[in-house]
Amino acid sequence: MKRILGIDPGLLHTGWAIIESTGSQRRYITSGVIRPPAKAALSARLAVIFDGISEICDTWAPTECAMEITFVNKNPTSTLLLGHARAAAMVAAGHKNIPTYEYEPTMIKKAIACAGHADKEQVARMVKILLPAAAPKSADESDALAIALAHSNTNPMLK
Amino acid sequence: MKRILGIDPGLLHTGWAIIESTGSQRRYITSGVIRPPAKAALSARLAVIFDGISEICDTWAPTECAMEITFVNKNPTSTLLLGHARAAAMVAAGHKNIPTYEYEPTMIKKAIACAGHADKEQVARMVKILLPAAAPKSADESDALAIALAHSNTNPMLK
Repeated sequence: MKRILGIDPGLLHTGWAIIESTGSQRRYITSGVIRPPAKAALSARLAVIFDGISEICDTWAPTECAMEITFVNKNPTSTLLLGHARAAAMVAAGHKNIPTYEYEPTMIKKAIACAGHADKEQVARMVKILLPAAAPKSADESDALAIALAHSNTNPMLK
Repeated sequence: MKRILGIDPGLLHTGWAIIESTGSQRRYITSGVIRPPAKAALSARLAVIFDGISEICDTWAPTECAMEITFVNKNPTSTLLLGHARAAAMVAAGHKNIPTYEYEPTMIKKAIACAGHADKEQVARMVKILLPAAAPKSADESDALAIALAHSNTNPMLK
């Protein structure tokens, strides 16, 4: 049995989700969103993400962590900030000795919706089918669940 | 008396420097470079930066930390990676309750070399004049010293 922490990082909203994976079974445990104060200094916002992920690791004891690989998008400045948020989450998991695996967005979509070009709605629908107990209240939370599911489906070494 | 940790973050080389600032006096304490293994996973490289800065904070007990503000440059992918390195260092200092101040590159040059458009060599020369005991072995180390000096010169609230 593996307990997977999926993280969808962001400076405004960092979605997170914990699922359990045993053989072909997947079980929803919990999920949520970390919301750093929008007007605080960058260092303070990163500290909120770091502390949030650290606390989640302490409380829910995941055995591994999964995140999406970030690419530079149309807005390089927002990508740069996303990189900061991503690193704060990654460092928090690493600090708790939880190995972190990274997946390309198309790999995540393929692992969940069987199509690398699936849209956000298709992925969200598949998350609800695969984890009926989950009731994600936002796209960040749903994406974190998708990342955790993708990791459980694509990494046979970890089953 | 303030003890300032200047950091010039980077995934390959993270320069760092500790100086003491008392009134108009500046004293070189120590400096160095953290070199994460180039071929390791991103999370492992960030962990080396986080652990390195954490250890420096424990050993040298800085009272504040200064870093350069990163802007998107010609290569957005390398800027994204720099953002990760920067966040790992920032989160480490924050985790040790050391307030972090951020400066624009032109402010740093102005505070050191009295010109926002000073080149790297001018800044390095001024670092040597202002901190004769320092013998930086690399540009990363020299830049970290410059950032610490700039902070000590530009933030009267902290003197």
